[in-house]
Amino acid sequence: MAVATVENPLRTGMRLERTPAPCAMVIFGASGDLTRRKLMPALYHLAQERLLPPGFSVVGFSRTDMSDQQFRDAMRQAVTEFGGEQPPQGAAWAHFAEGLSYISAHPGHSEEYRKLAEALERSDRQRGTGGNRLFYLAVPPSSIEPIVNNLQQSGLAHTSAGWARIIVEKPFGHDLESARELNESISRVFREDQIYRIDHYLGKETVQNLLVFRFANGIFEPVWNRRYVESIQVTAAETVGVENRAGYFEEAGELRDMIQNHLLQVLALTAMEPPAVIGADQVRLEKVKLLRALRPLDEGALRTCAVRGQYGPGWVEGKKVPAYRQEPDVDPNSATETYAAVKLFIENWRWAGVPVYLRAGKRLARHVTEVAIQFKQAPLLLFHDQPTEAMRPNLLLVRIQPDEGISLRFTAKLPGPAIQTRSVHMDFRYASFGVPSASAYERLLLDCMLGDPTLFAHRDGVEAAWAFITPILQYWAAEPPADFPNYAAGSWGPEEADKLMAGGCAPWRRP
Amino acid sequence: MAVATVENPLRTGMRLERTPAPCAMVIFGASGDLTRRKLMPALYHLAQERLLPPGFSVVGFSRTDMSDQQFRDAMRQAVTEFGGEQPPQGAAWAHFAEGLSYISAHPGHSEEYRKLAEALERSDRQRGTGGNRLFYLAVPPSSIEPIVNNLQQSGLAHTSAGWARIIVEKPFGHDLESARELNESISRVFREDQIYRIDHYLGKETVQNLLVFRFANGIFEPVWNRRYVESIQVTAAETVGVENRAGYFEEAGELRDMIQNHLLQVLALTAMEPPAVIGADQVRLEKVKLLRALRPLDEGALRTCAVRGQYGPGWVEGKKVPAYRQEPDVDPNSATETYAAVKLFIENWRWAGVPVYLRAGKRLARHVTEVAIQFKQAPLLLFHDQPTEAMRPNLLLVRIQPDEGISLRFTAKLPGPAIQTRSVHMDFRYASFGVPSASAYERLLLDCMLGDPTLFAHRDGVEAAWAFITPILQYWAAEPPADFPNYAAGSWGPEEADKLMAGGCAPWRRP
Repeated sequence: MAVATVENPLRTGMRLERTPAPCAMVIFGASGDLTRRKLMPALYHLAQERLLPPGFSVVGFSRTDMSDQQFRDAMRQAVTEFGGEQPPQGAAWAHFAEGLSYISAHPGHSEEYRKLAEALERSDRQRGTGGNRLFYLAVPPSSIEPIVNNLQQSGLAHTSAGWARIIVEKPFGHDLESARELNESISRVFREDQIYRIDHYLGKETVQNLLVFRFANGIFEPVWNRRYVESIQVTAAETVGVENRAGYFEEAGELRDMIQNHLLQVLALTAMEPPAVIGADQVRLEKVKLLRALRPLDEGALRTCAVRGQYGPGWVEGKKVPAYRQEPDVDPNSATETYAAVKLFIENWRWAGVPVYLRAGKRLARHVTEVAIQFKQAPLLLFHDQPTEAMRPNLLLVRIQPDEGISLRFTAKLPGPAIQTRSVHMDFRYASFGVPSASAYERLLLDCMLGDPTLFAHRDGVEAAWAFITPILQYWAAEPPADFPNYAAGSWGPEEADKLMAGGCAPWRRP
Repeated sequence: MAVATVENPLRTGMRLERTPAPCAMVIFGASGDLTRRKLMPALYHLAQERLLPPGFSVVGFSRTDMSDQQFRDAMRQAVTEFGGEQPPQGAAWAHFAEGLSYISAHPGHSEEYRKLAEALERSDRQRGTGGNRLFYLAVPPSSIEPIVNNLQQSGLAHTSAGWARIIVEKPFGHDLESARELNESISRVFREDQIYRIDHYLGKETVQNLLVFRFANGIFEPVWNRRYVESIQVTAAETVGVENRAGYFEEAGELRDMIQNHLLQVLALTAMEPPAVIGADQVRLEKVKLLRALRPLDEGALRTCAVRGQYGPGWVEGKKVPAYRQEPDVDPNSATETYAAVKLFIENWRWAGVPVYLRAGKRLARHVTEVAIQFKQAPLLLFHDQPTEAMRPNLLLVRIQPDEGISLRFTAKLPGPAIQTRSVHMDFRYASFGVPSASAYERLLLDCMLGDPTLFAHRDGVEAAWAFITPILQYWAAEPPADFPNYAAGSWGPEEADKLMAGGCAPWRRP
């Protein structure tokens, strides 16, 4: 067994504090699931860590009828249930709860925004939030345009003192055209630098560590290119099925739900050129450049390089589970894919000719998200008498979840008098820091308050991703799948996906 | 903490067996320390592992008066004492001991070699050793020439059936001229391919793993050059003093005892070009090329790039220890160095301008032998707000002893909302194989029986090493040290050695 040591784990004095200026946050959809499960636990945890600015306030805005006190109670319960630590109590909670208020209103009714304006002015006056406003739209896509328009009409989209920013949750459109329309709607009101399109995958520690790993280490960047890399595999495998999201998922499908956003964003961070500065807009621009360099799938490629699947019944983690078509609220003849895999190429100097494989699926054998950089084999003339299994090429694995970390597969000599080799792993686990990871939402909320859009999607990036994905969606819609269900729940997806590797590439990993 | 996993640790079926042809081994100096401590335990362990050929025989040859049975008993006791495992017994030992015989004779007396020839013929007849002879010279340098000449005169140096090989122990000369003379003496009798100059450092697992690590992994070789490497440090630090070797050591000194042979050989394996074939003479030739590429120290460099030291009294591992000059059999005014450090350059395309630091010393703070490849810092523009300690450049560490293994220092992101970095280690420990390492002598004895000189020094390599070292020896002899003792036992050596790093190189490691 090997050990990774953290140098000077106690030097927390080195920690760079970045505290945002005082501000108020308005949550549209404050009575919904996202607020309870993610936003409020993240905000409370930030408060505990003293990373929120003094006077920080939250104005909940939703149709559900609640008083301020009822909202606070509901939020306390949410933090208890989803916060993952001891329930909030005493002065710490009281201090945080002071900043919470609630407006019961229909987000489509413009007259209701006067109440919101008043609440924000009160916050500025009483809590010193200085005119800084963060609007979080935890609402269905159809509500985005009305809210944005109402924010404009009520004069809240631009403040004379301070800043106004808007966070928009996915799905960000359902194809290129609708994404463009949505971008247009928002852009009529907000400048691009005010718009924060959130993708919580980008808030995960290991995804961010990709940036540090690539650009703070001198020895990986030299081999991070077509000369040394054989292929890249990005996997997001879930063991869960559609759960209670069938209504949404039936319309979306796996390609939209996972690949268009999360996996393409992760790929962009993995493969982009070094930005001139980190922690600034350059990262977004480099990601856009990368996404624009994806070679569009032509008709032949649409047939052979994009594979869809839908799970039938099977066994997952020892439990028998039904087919997708038997799930509640799913059409018994549904053509929606629960698995998607795409083979693509990046047309630039760094990556030309290196196949990239993306796959995402529900009800697969294991819950794992990872980026696997498969390097080319060294010339093996020196070791021609070694069995192939003992000489597997180097593999750098960035584990995003679970057990976040980085490992490197290399070949070592087996102890003993002969030169026999074996593939072994050097491993670094994030848990070895002994510091709890910040949740993705904590990180991203804080970044937005700080005005740092590095980890948010740029309009151009979103559209570039849709431009790549939309032809696949259209092709699939025009050619309904004849073989669904085509993989058993608990397997690694449809057999057809294996054919993407034709030509001698490393096969799909079975993590 | 991180974990290294060994893939398929149970696939021992993959093990490539290499069993030598039957042979007889003659040990000159069979009653001496090396035979008891190293050779016999190694041979017995090889027998246990079934790596020795059938009928393998040992003929001990030494002045001490012993019968065959007394020799067997002495060897059984040696294996018990130094074998590191349970004492040999039963059929296993009996079978091994059958092959042991002893000749009490003076190695300088040519008439005694008739007995030896008879013993070998008997071995061929009775045990089927087929005329194959391995002569191990575990004797002082002065005995080498007489033995070699007697082997020739008795017709044992070349056999009509089978092979004859000779293993010669260090010290292999005491300067360039004496090494050349010794090589000449042996070469008058044996061809170069019959001569195995043993350096037990090269039999260590991690030293051999250097070959596998460098050439079986595609991602390290691209950065193994002047473009990415800032400096190389090779360290052999001992906590022991001169022990009971003062007689020899007073003449030799640390530069001859450790750097001329072990450290230069390790450096050669670390820095040489990829050979065309591994496990063959090409490795030796590449090492020779490397050693010949060392830039000779000119008069300025002799003054500034070679540092010597001698320990005074001090504390080592909690115990008070005397100065070197107070050790038994040491001249109270001794000018012999117990510490030596050299800064050198390799004049070839791969390494031009990369400083290489070698150091070896006795009574230092820790017992450690390692090769440290210090890489250049990545361009840090992206992380200009990070403290320097959090952004140390990549370091690849090959630990030769103790705790053999490889570790890689890299920079990772600290968990938390800000981009804060920390130096961490990925580590691979040889012990994780769960297979006991073969001892250096086992490996090297087997290689010699197999006719594989890869890990032995070539005549040209030995002379190239002496050619580099001899000017330092001469300069030091001409300028006796005025400041001895100049480091305390238990420290990291003389302060002057730190000045070798002037110009911004990474300082000496304090492992």
